Amino acid sequence: MSAYCAACDWGTSSFRLWLLDADGAVLGERVSDDGLLSVGGRFEAVLEQHLSALGAASGLPVIICGMAGSRSGWQEAAYLNAPCSLLDVPGAAVRIAGVSRDVRILPGISQASPADVMRGEETQLLGLKGDGIVCLPGTHSKWATVRDGRVESFSTWMTGELFALLSRHSILAASVEGAAVPDNAFRDGLNAVLDQPEVLTNALFGLRARALLGQGGGGVSALSGYLIGSELVGVGPAASVTLVAGGPLGDLYEAALEELGTPFERKDATATTQAGLFAAATEIWKTEAA
Amino acid sequence: MSAYCAACDWGTSSFRLWLLDADGAVLGERVSDDGLLSVGGRFEAVLEQHLSALGAASGLPVIICGMAGSRSGWQEAAYLNAPCSLLDVPGAAVRIAGVSRDVRILPGISQASPADVMRGEETQLLGLKGDGIVCLPGTHSKWATVRDGRVESFSTWMTGELFALLSRHSILAASVEGAAVPDNAFRDGLNAVLDQPEVLTNALFGLRARALLGQGGGGVSALSGYLIGSELVGVGPAASVTLVAGGPLGDLYEAALEELGTPFERKDATATTQAGLFAAATEIWKTEAA
Repeated sequence: MSAYCAACDWGTSSFRLWLLDADGAVLGERVSDDGLLSVGGRFEAVLEQHLSALGAASGLPVIICGMAGSRSGWQEAAYLNAPCSLLDVPGAAVRIAGVSRDVRILPGISQASPADVMRGEETQLLGLKGDGIVCLPGTHSKWATVRDGRVESFSTWMTGELFALLSRHSILAASVEGAAVPDNAFRDGLNAVLDQPEVLTNALFGLRARALLGQGGGGVSALSGYLIGSELVGVGPAASVTLVAGGPLGDLYEAALEELGTPFERKDATATTQAGLFAAATEIWKTEAA
Repeated sequence: MSAYCAACDWGTSSFRLWLLDADGAVLGERVSDDGLLSVGGRFEAVLEQHLSALGAASGLPVIICGMAGSRSGWQEAAYLNAPCSLLDVPGAAVRIAGVSRDVRILPGISQASPADVMRGEETQLLGLKGDGIVCLPGTHSKWATVRDGRVESFSTWMTGELFALLSRHSILAASVEGAAVPDNAFRDGLNAVLDQPEVLTNALFGLRARALLGQGGGGVSALSGYLIGSELVGVGPAASVTLVAGGPLGDLYEAALEELGTPFERKDATATTQAGLFAAATEIWKTEAA
């Protein structure tokens, strides 16, 4: 089976590359930490090295999403402004100049008020091929409202980055070891902040105090519950949600949505990214071939 | 003028020592970063070195508050349990064993539900010699309710530590450089979170998005406004407040309380600590001399 294109999600700290066939199925994969922070500007060399490792033909075109299209990336793909059609995303891809093969980088989407930005999630939204309220958990969790194939609005929540900062670098570190799981401590933390969102930064210190006073247990899951609860109460009620998240993080959001009683459909984040890159690729190269 | 005692606020990362006369006036001062994290257990040697630098007599007694009395400090001074009288603080001081001079460490105060702890602020509350709602801003801001000389309840807010983590170690770092001041950006940030406390972690990311979209300006002050606003709305309304804070941090809380329309009286934090240590010293040594 021969490859139709290579598809790449190139982020700040991670690099993922797939060979896709003409149906969008994955023929080969490379996952590394060759993110923007570590490649030192050697974008073409790093990409070619990974393509070579997958045995990609020299003329195979490449579609890229993520921070590689930011101002500090390979080549800037300027933000589309929301509200905008998701079909505008492949339409606004930029072609990398001065490289031997056809390499395109997809733009992110910005929003003027309230000010917000996404890069990478627009490709996942394209891959979903559906309307509704979409939750994309992560370092900077995104919530997007999609109607008739258009991104109407979206918001970003620092949930994942706050979790990382607090669990690794704060006074809470010793009280929140291990991995968060959707247990009673998680649900108690979630409900505490759903009921009283204004107590968040007090509840956080409570994790340290409970540990000092021997009332500990479940610290890391409670921390996750507080932060996800703060995100959910901030976003507000939704009739139903498409949850784009794999693995343990997806399990936590799933438990949170169940606790809220919000109906949801869960999609794998990686598969959704692949589907979005494939949709963009076919849109770009079929259009140009026509 | 001869010294009555030495008074020390010995924290996790800082060490402050004063010689006080019989009226509590400061005769000499040492300020260093010889906190718990850097002295490596050499408590007596470090203390004696600073006392010697101040020319303290070999028999001069020493009163200490702060983390030196924690489990990981010089000698544990077990928490008093709130509600408790502030006069119980000197009453529960522990005397360091095996040292040549009379050295006492004051206990902190804990609260079982909601779980909370303080070490150092109880000495400031003792130094205030008054009732009411007291705000003690800092890395872990404390709010205490004191009635008839008793600490009825208190709460801790991670405001200062979150500010440090977000401004130094998060994606916001490049968007929040410089020092926070009580300007319009501070007041706008404050009011945004006072109005909608549940949007905190979204508002934080907005600082980054505004900078990326060229809507920047006032990032660090807005960050401070968001976090102090979150603390104030979480604490809830107060008829009046005693604000124990010097310098720029005190100015920010002062502006926040003015914005809320909450009457307040401001006290210098260092002078309040000195007054509390002196009050504890006279209570301990007058009682024993009687």
